[in-house]
Amino acid sequence: MGPSPAEHAQLRPREDAALADRLARSAAAAAGSHLATGDFADWLAGRGRAHRFEVDRIPFAELEGWSFDEATGNLGHHSGRFFSVEGLRVTLGDGPVRHWEQPIIKQPEVGILGILVKEFDGVLHLLMQAKMEPGNPNLLQLSPTVQATRSNYTKVHKGSDVKYIEYFTDPARGRVLADVLQSEHGSWFFRKSNRNMLVEAVGEVPEHEDFCWLTLGQVNELLHRDNVVNMDSRTVLSCIPVADPQPRALFEDTEVLSWFTAERSRHEVSAERIPLASVQGWQRGESSIDHQDGRFFRAVAVRVRAGSREVASWTQPLFEPVGRGVTAFLTRTVDGVRHVLVHARVEGGFLDTVELGPTVQATEGNHAHLPAEDRPPFLDTVLTAGPDRIHYQAVHSEEGGRFLNAESRYLIVEADERTAAEQPPEGFRWVTPGQLTSLVRHGHYVNVQARTLLACLNATAVPAR
Amino acid sequence: MGPSPAEHAQLRPREDAALADRLARSAAAAAGSHLATGDFADWLAGRGRAHRFEVDRIPFAELEGWSFDEATGNLGHHSGRFFSVEGLRVTLGDGPVRHWEQPIIKQPEVGILGILVKEFDGVLHLLMQAKMEPGNPNLLQLSPTVQATRSNYTKVHKGSDVKYIEYFTDPARGRVLADVLQSEHGSWFFRKSNRNMLVEAVGEVPEHEDFCWLTLGQVNELLHRDNVVNMDSRTVLSCIPVADPQPRALFEDTEVLSWFTAERSRHEVSAERIPLASVQGWQRGESSIDHQDGRFFRAVAVRVRAGSREVASWTQPLFEPVGRGVTAFLTRTVDGVRHVLVHARVEGGFLDTVELGPTVQATEGNHAHLPAEDRPPFLDTVLTAGPDRIHYQAVHSEEGGRFLNAESRYLIVEADERTAAEQPPEGFRWVTPGQLTSLVRHGHYVNVQARTLLACLNATAVPAR
Repeated sequence: MGPSPAEHAQLRPREDAALADRLARSAAAAAGSHLATGDFADWLAGRGRAHRFEVDRIPFAELEGWSFDEATGNLGHHSGRFFSVEGLRVTLGDGPVRHWEQPIIKQPEVGILGILVKEFDGVLHLLMQAKMEPGNPNLLQLSPTVQATRSNYTKVHKGSDVKYIEYFTDPARGRVLADVLQSEHGSWFFRKSNRNMLVEAVGEVPEHEDFCWLTLGQVNELLHRDNVVNMDSRTVLSCIPVADPQPRALFEDTEVLSWFTAERSRHEVSAERIPLASVQGWQRGESSIDHQDGRFFRAVAVRVRAGSREVASWTQPLFEPVGRGVTAFLTRTVDGVRHVLVHARVEGGFLDTVELGPTVQATEGNHAHLPAEDRPPFLDTVLTAGPDRIHYQAVHSEEGGRFLNAESRYLIVEADERTAAEQPPEGFRWVTPGQLTSLVRHGHYVNVQARTLLACLNATAVPAR
Repeated sequence: MGPSPAEHAQLRPREDAALADRLARSAAAAAGSHLATGDFADWLAGRGRAHRFEVDRIPFAELEGWSFDEATGNLGHHSGRFFSVEGLRVTLGDGPVRHWEQPIIKQPEVGILGILVKEFDGVLHLLMQAKMEPGNPNLLQLSPTVQATRSNYTKVHKGSDVKYIEYFTDPARGRVLADVLQSEHGSWFFRKSNRNMLVEAVGEVPEHEDFCWLTLGQVNELLHRDNVVNMDSRTVLSCIPVADPQPRALFEDTEVLSWFTAERSRHEVSAERIPLASVQGWQRGESSIDHQDGRFFRAVAVRVRAGSREVASWTQPLFEPVGRGVTAFLTRTVDGVRHVLVHARVEGGFLDTVELGPTVQATEGNHAHLPAEDRPPFLDTVLTAGPDRIHYQAVHSEEGGRFLNAESRYLIVEADERTAAEQPPEGFRWVTPGQLTSLVRHGHYVNVQARTLLACLNATAVPAR
């Protein structure tokens, strides 16, 4: 909790100048000291065979420990912990849709998403976990070393301990390389944030069969595969303080911050929690709560049987989006420097009005009822992009502990002056990946979808040496 | 709103390397091109004589346009704008006092606090305003160029325009040097924030008799006087990106951020708005709403007659604290580098659990009923410090548009290992002024009292040339 007496007179440089180089070396390492990338799929499949997982949809009545409150209709756990499904009423001062109500997940606990790193043979490796989550389309994906709500690691589950948690809760066990509270899905969560941590271990780290050490280069290669690197990993990866070789940009950092401040100030957003039973436009059935037009998402319930999770069996609610999303950055290279087009997005569940999202973050069906002029800007540019314009694409799913089959196609698409002008519409701005990396050092600037894309951007860049 | 076509291929450095030097030159300039510091008091007194100001306490029944809602008891304006006095119920997971209710000011509008700067004779000058605020003990103080709620500058007042506002709303009129949403008093406001802006004017700036150009050095000298530089000025001054000559500190920036993230995560804070009529422990009389034991503050009403304000006469509620506060940084110099002891404070009205406050932020009478062990840490060290230990002291008042006679004695006090150890109690940490300057580039890290002290720290430092 502070310097030891012997270090009293030892001031440190405010920034660790060597870290960016060490991270670049790890990103350039296509092979690591442990598992070969070519053997990864077999290893993951092996972990899947070693544990038995079954996820079945059930009616709400079969939920155990969960029930709808008689007065409010809110769906919660009898312990009062984990999370609850409540109602939200959103009113905006501008935009095509200015008022709506919806179910929303309230989860006030701050969890920890942490990746432990350690140097082997002079190269930093990341300790990644094969983890089952009931909402993942393929159940087993690669998660951070630790992905735990406070209920998890304070044992409300009455299950087994969370492995490696001590590296993230006891400062003496490691050296923190990044640690920031980041928001999660503002359309589905009410003001949720999680601690995103990167910790370098001090001393030997015990091995465990569900965990593997991979270089950043290996993880970046896996990020190109569909549904392998889970959302919790992606958001932590986006917070890695990678080097920015570009000290120049279209806008100074202060200009970017000023534009962001103006965007946050100009939107009037009122988001009030209301009882789930009073939410207009949604219908509760025996097995799901649905939007009256079948749009957006539905709340459902599942039963999970698993051997590798903290407890052997449980039931829980999940949100299941209707349709696959499209999540994309348009990118342009200006004077040799790559820029991406960010969008200051209002989401009802954000702590503070807007955060920077991708150029496009949409699910086509959700906008089908709106007039053409209210179609999300740049959606068609992304959907019609030829293969020569697509720098990156993969299907990723969102947090499988809360969302069922919540897949999006993530893309990075080359644009030009015709498809995306240097002077974009209000609410959009060109920034460099390095500027985004500076922003994600702090919370509530960059939303979770844009953070996935930032991790993907860093995974496609030629590593700077 | 973006680069002109001719600038398309012109990338800019992400940071303006010359700015810190220009600010240091202004801080070193004890005299400016306009008003001499020795003439300032006369100038301010002259502005006071030029306008007639009267502030009288009135019973709530004489408020015009303001009334208590019949159902909720909330005190609001019939336009639905400006602000309202409502109730707040706070529940904490730890600490000596874990539950309370109180009146609170709700003001969802984001205002602008902006200082316009311009170079004269090669030295940056700040355009400061002589402004009357009804709650200031001496009515007239030095305010930023612009200090306006959205209601002010969109004319809900139906009064005159806000002078110089165009420099802060039209990006083409100036160059932004700082622009950040900062919180205000979390004990009195519910999640209020204001835009703190520093803008360098492009082109000639018209003069006005209520405004004067001062160098940063002159303003810093005025900061040593009691009740001259108002709170809105002080918070903007704290956001000035002054140079940090010290690249070293007891803790790396990442360690400071990680500690802050841990502090924000470990506190469980529930702050719910409730009807003012239902607030327990407070009593509404004809002219004030008081705490049952006479502690904390009271809500009162005043009538204002003034010539230099946007409208000529009005009535409004104000919060009047009970007793003068003590607000102090303890400071120690470690290995030649000054550090100050910040405190991760929970305040019920903060947007997100904690912000970094001063070492001591207290009003003695408010703690008199608590056992000795719950007395605010370090309060006695500050109160008993001899003159040789006091680097800075002045009495400043808080926002005179909302608070009546809200004075605090602001101090910067030298400590040693005996009075403030390098390993402080939980919730406290030593940081450098430069680290605070990095943090105030972003919102919700440093509370308004600590920002005043940061401005005072910068005002007492020998300017780096």
